[in-house]
Amino acid sequence: MNNDEYLTALGQNAKQASYALATLSGQQKSALLRCIADKLTAAKADIVSANQQDVADAKANGLSDAMIDRLLLDETRLMGVISDIDNVIGLTDPVGSEIDSRLLDNGLRLSRRRVPLGVIGVIYEARPNVTVDIAVLALKTGNAVILRGGKETLASNKALCTVIRSAMVSQGLSEDCVQLIDNPDRSLVSGLLKLDKYVDMIVPRGGQNLQRLCAEQATIPVILGGIGICHIYVDAEANLEKAVSVIENAKVQRPTVCNALDTVLIHQSHAKQFIPVLAKHLSGLGVNFYGCDQTQAILTAEGLDVSAATDESFATEWLSLTLGIRVVADLDGAVEHIRQFSSGHSESILTDNIHTASDFMNAIDSAAVYVNASTRFTDGGEFGLGAEVAVSTQKLHARGPMGLEALTTYKWLAWGDYTIRG
Amino acid sequence: MNNDEYLTALGQNAKQASYALATLSGQQKSALLRCIADKLTAAKADIVSANQQDVADAKANGLSDAMIDRLLLDETRLMGVISDIDNVIGLTDPVGSEIDSRLLDNGLRLSRRRVPLGVIGVIYEARPNVTVDIAVLALKTGNAVILRGGKETLASNKALCTVIRSAMVSQGLSEDCVQLIDNPDRSLVSGLLKLDKYVDMIVPRGGQNLQRLCAEQATIPVILGGIGICHIYVDAEANLEKAVSVIENAKVQRPTVCNALDTVLIHQSHAKQFIPVLAKHLSGLGVNFYGCDQTQAILTAEGLDVSAATDESFATEWLSLTLGIRVVADLDGAVEHIRQFSSGHSESILTDNIHTASDFMNAIDSAAVYVNASTRFTDGGEFGLGAEVAVSTQKLHARGPMGLEALTTYKWLAWGDYTIRG
Repeated sequence: MNNDEYLTALGQNAKQASYALATLSGQQKSALLRCIADKLTAAKADIVSANQQDVADAKANGLSDAMIDRLLLDETRLMGVISDIDNVIGLTDPVGSEIDSRLLDNGLRLSRRRVPLGVIGVIYEARPNVTVDIAVLALKTGNAVILRGGKETLASNKALCTVIRSAMVSQGLSEDCVQLIDNPDRSLVSGLLKLDKYVDMIVPRGGQNLQRLCAEQATIPVILGGIGICHIYVDAEANLEKAVSVIENAKVQRPTVCNALDTVLIHQSHAKQFIPVLAKHLSGLGVNFYGCDQTQAILTAEGLDVSAATDESFATEWLSLTLGIRVVADLDGAVEHIRQFSSGHSESILTDNIHTASDFMNAIDSAAVYVNASTRFTDGGEFGLGAEVAVSTQKLHARGPMGLEALTTYKWLAWGDYTIRG
Repeated sequence: MNNDEYLTALGQNAKQASYALATLSGQQKSALLRCIADKLTAAKADIVSANQQDVADAKANGLSDAMIDRLLLDETRLMGVISDIDNVIGLTDPVGSEIDSRLLDNGLRLSRRRVPLGVIGVIYEARPNVTVDIAVLALKTGNAVILRGGKETLASNKALCTVIRSAMVSQGLSEDCVQLIDNPDRSLVSGLLKLDKYVDMIVPRGGQNLQRLCAEQATIPVILGGIGICHIYVDAEANLEKAVSVIENAKVQRPTVCNALDTVLIHQSHAKQFIPVLAKHLSGLGVNFYGCDQTQAILTAEGLDVSAATDESFATEWLSLTLGIRVVADLDGAVEHIRQFSSGHSESILTDNIHTASDFMNAIDSAAVYVNASTRFTDGGEFGLGAEVAVSTQKLHARGPMGLEALTTYKWLAWGDYTIRG
């Protein structure tokens, strides 16, 4: 079987399997997820052992400690992944609810019913927990899923999928509800992106290169996201003392995630006063800086280290303890900077002036816009969605943290009495 | 200026213009649309004269009468287009409403606000009325728009856009809120499809080739739609007399549109009785048939003409007085046929059995699913949306008839008190 035949079979199997999933009741789906959790618990020794193989290979291949930590799935972490399934079981199932129901003048009783998307393709990096997370969220919403994880966790992913597929069968469903592309050939990713006859949505969970590959090659709708070049604007009327703690939280609490702060924009009226205070506090926490000309002059005069910011540095998602600092003339200057450099993820204004706050909220077109809060809140759990499929930075279908509803669509249903159009 | 520079300028201008549009009040947008209607009325002689040039060129180029009729914009039609603007002015503006507002445990006051998408690109064929329709719907929802119409109506589109752009300026807005690609070079379409830095959504309004081109080349989210391979299943328990009138309505009332019927599926129990009755009635109205083997045998025995249906004919959107007929064993057979051949637009079951009706509604995954009704109702106006941007046959963002809301997205807004994540 060549790659095209393999992918076509994969797509056909997923689509066929999706039909039965779409009509399951909430109770049946809960039983299925419970069965997956139980079988994963029973198989934990096999799974941990498969992961140890991945870790050994990663070490032999000289992968970084950070990378190896990411792909590690020891018993503690696995039990955490399994216990997350309980949370998902407890979430409200959006499938089946009917909205906008009404009787039309032509006699049709019309409504929109929320239904599963059908088949979801997910491409992700070397994090074996994603294999379970995504399969469980897809099944909870009645979708079949095709998984393509990083090659560094292939043994772990195989072990996890084997267990999940056996749970499908023991619940009277097709094992093809969950399929793993277990061949590391990269051309299979390109092929998956063109399976529009069978796959309804692609979710890439990975960095800029993966996002770009999907945008360029996919003939299937793609949910881009997870890249956050995030800003905080410290307005002329901000409380500067409190501003330091918000900026610290946004930058330092967890610098490796997409809702962490990348650039702080400072109103010129307090640049000389505030920038040294902020920089001294943050450098004590290990933060280093890229500053605009004015920021460089201020920090250098104080004897603090600062690199020269460029358009390229302002367009970088740092994912580390690096912070851009720029002085802006006013709100318009802040808005202009954000429009030029933001990835459309999360931006915040710190101000005590309600008009400035409102103007910022109106002018900024990002998935999440904050007044007097850390950007770190952009997260499905924090927003009360119960689960997070991804954080979308595009505008169609779903924006910002995506919960279960983002894995569904709707169909229009109309009941008539042999009704014809006049 | 080469094509790349031209397109980049087009995108930048549109994005820049969109910022002011996004903050207009409903009243300001109504004033803008009123101004467009007035200016189009005042310029009707120029517009009709430009259209006459397009018509003359079309005749000189030997275009078909049907094509020429489509691109014709005489005074009567133009006044119709202008009066449609009044309807749009009267629609509720979805922009600005806030949904899911709540206070989170962490103290943030969170809501989702409906906002314009930003910049919409629309690619369409030689129908000058679309130029006005789409510009007006985009402006009503606060979006800038880039238009690319068929080259056969370039003079008409230029005349219309000149008027619309002058209305923008007289309302204190940028004329770049509405831009027309007035160079027929086809490579500009491919270029437009990759302007993801500036354009937020592409709507192709045209046939299969245009849809495919957009799916394959676009790096911007595309709303595919407007292709309807539509089915009616006549169940064993259908009222056959009423079934004839529904099928007639779906096939004959307006055969050239996407919600017209393409294939009728007949339960085997009444194939011999019903197919001759149906075919005699429809052939009297000019309908011709492609039948499955059994249908061919039945019709030939009755001395009626029928062509042999193939997988290719069942996969054809006829847009004419042609009808496919297939005998199926039961509901499952009908569902299987629809899953194989439908474009996901509109399907209907005719039955008096509520269980069969419900099973059909659950099993069929198309944008609109009917019980005892003609497929012809799948339309923004009929569904009470007030306007129709397009009919989506994909599942993300918008499905089926797309009203004003499909031209918007939402952003998450959160108010805190220098709130940090714990």
